[in-house]
Amino acid sequence: MTIAIIGGTGPEGSGLALRWARAGEKVVIGSRNAQRAAEIAATILGRIASTGEGARASTLSGADNTSACASADIVVLTVPFEAHAETLKNLKASFRAGQILVDATVPLAASVGGKPTQLLGVWQGSAAQQAAELVPEGIAVVAAFHNVCADCLNGDQPIDCDVIVCSDNKEAGKKVRELARKIPGLRAIDGGKLENARIVEQITALQIGLNIRHKGRAGIRITGLPPQAYDL
Amino acid sequence: MTIAIIGGTGPEGSGLALRWARAGEKVVIGSRNAQRAAEIAATILGRIASTGEGARASTLSGADNTSACASADIVVLTVPFEAHAETLKNLKASFRAGQILVDATVPLAASVGGKPTQLLGVWQGSAAQQAAELVPEGIAVVAAFHNVCADCLNGDQPIDCDVIVCSDNKEAGKKVRELARKIPGLRAIDGGKLENARIVEQITALQIGLNIRHKGRAGIRITGLPPQAYDL
Repeated sequence: MTIAIIGGTGPEGSGLALRWARAGEKVVIGSRNAQRAAEIAATILGRIASTGEGARASTLSGADNTSACASADIVVLTVPFEAHAETLKNLKASFRAGQILVDATVPLAASVGGKPTQLLGVWQGSAAQQAAELVPEGIAVVAAFHNVCADCLNGDQPIDCDVIVCSDNKEAGKKVRELARKIPGLRAIDGGKLENARIVEQITALQIGLNIRHKGRAGIRITGLPPQAYDL
Repeated sequence: MTIAIIGGTGPEGSGLALRWARAGEKVVIGSRNAQRAAEIAATILGRIASTGEGARASTLSGADNTSACASADIVVLTVPFEAHAETLKNLKASFRAGQILVDATVPLAASVGGKPTQLLGVWQGSAAQQAAELVPEGIAVVAAFHNVCADCLNGDQPIDCDVIVCSDNKEAGKKVRELARKIPGLRAIDGGKLENARIVEQITALQIGLNIRHKGRAGIRITGLPPQAYDL
């Protein structure tokens, strides 16, 4: 299984690449600039090698977004919202039926010069639902990873956060929850239909406000669910 | 200090009354029906007395919503959204400057016959912002307690949940956070301006979906903030 991370040179994308490469997954970092993607991949590989985890990291590479997308089984989108629609339009010809698109995008008002603690209204309800409208038929869209802080992903510690996974495709949702659980500390929960992404995306703006106000790296945990809720 | 709970005969309101009465606070349960409010107050008192906590519970009573509101320093609104605007209009003459209105209302689509996992769009952005438009001048509106499960409030255990408190009035927000901390297990966090209530309210619909899907009593915890964030 290959994971492409589109916009993988940003802090969220490169953090996911680091964590999945450490877990032994095959990862391709995508960028508009293939050289930049290769550089980031090399930096991450160096970091993994320096902690003696090099053996499992031979499968991390960089490529342009289109090639990265075409090579992958799971395509993770971690671009800023202002690049969301255009990136998906540019990838249209690179998708093939059966792929999973994981959308971690948050429609922050900062995308249009506003505040990072406020959100834009997206016509479809959420960035993930906009993505579902823009991908070709046969691509399952899954919303996930919005609430995992990028700084934490780029660290070495287990991450104290739950990943709420929303999708209209149950099998795809399950695969993404399994992928989330490969990152130490993260728990993954079925958050229901893709339309619920509108709530999960908005929580990120609240977290950004908490981080500014309290100088933290806010994550969220869901409490009060039976243990099997985190295994499904 | 007196706390009035408007709509205090419902599960969330009576749970808060139970918890604050146990903590020694003076509580008036409000209802459209004063007799019903008195009955619920008596039931809660009986329950507290049966666990040997009777001495501190002499200050729990019931009244009609208007009298309850007029008698209180802090007025907590726990009505279903379909009764939100009308209740506040009916209370208009009972408010007096300096009071705090704590709004725990969530604009669930169930209010108009829709799903409890979906939300209505409120013109002002959130139920709490609608409340701010409907109260007389001099009343500080604070959004809080949306994410605390009613079943948990009505139990005897500490509650595994954080209360995100949003207000444009810093002093009022602080008082409500202190009030939240009187309930065992709850932590309270400054969630910023009242406009952020739109996110906090929406999280409730996500929790309801998780409860249905996973047969749980979902709460939320914010992680990654310094300990002092919970003391402010």
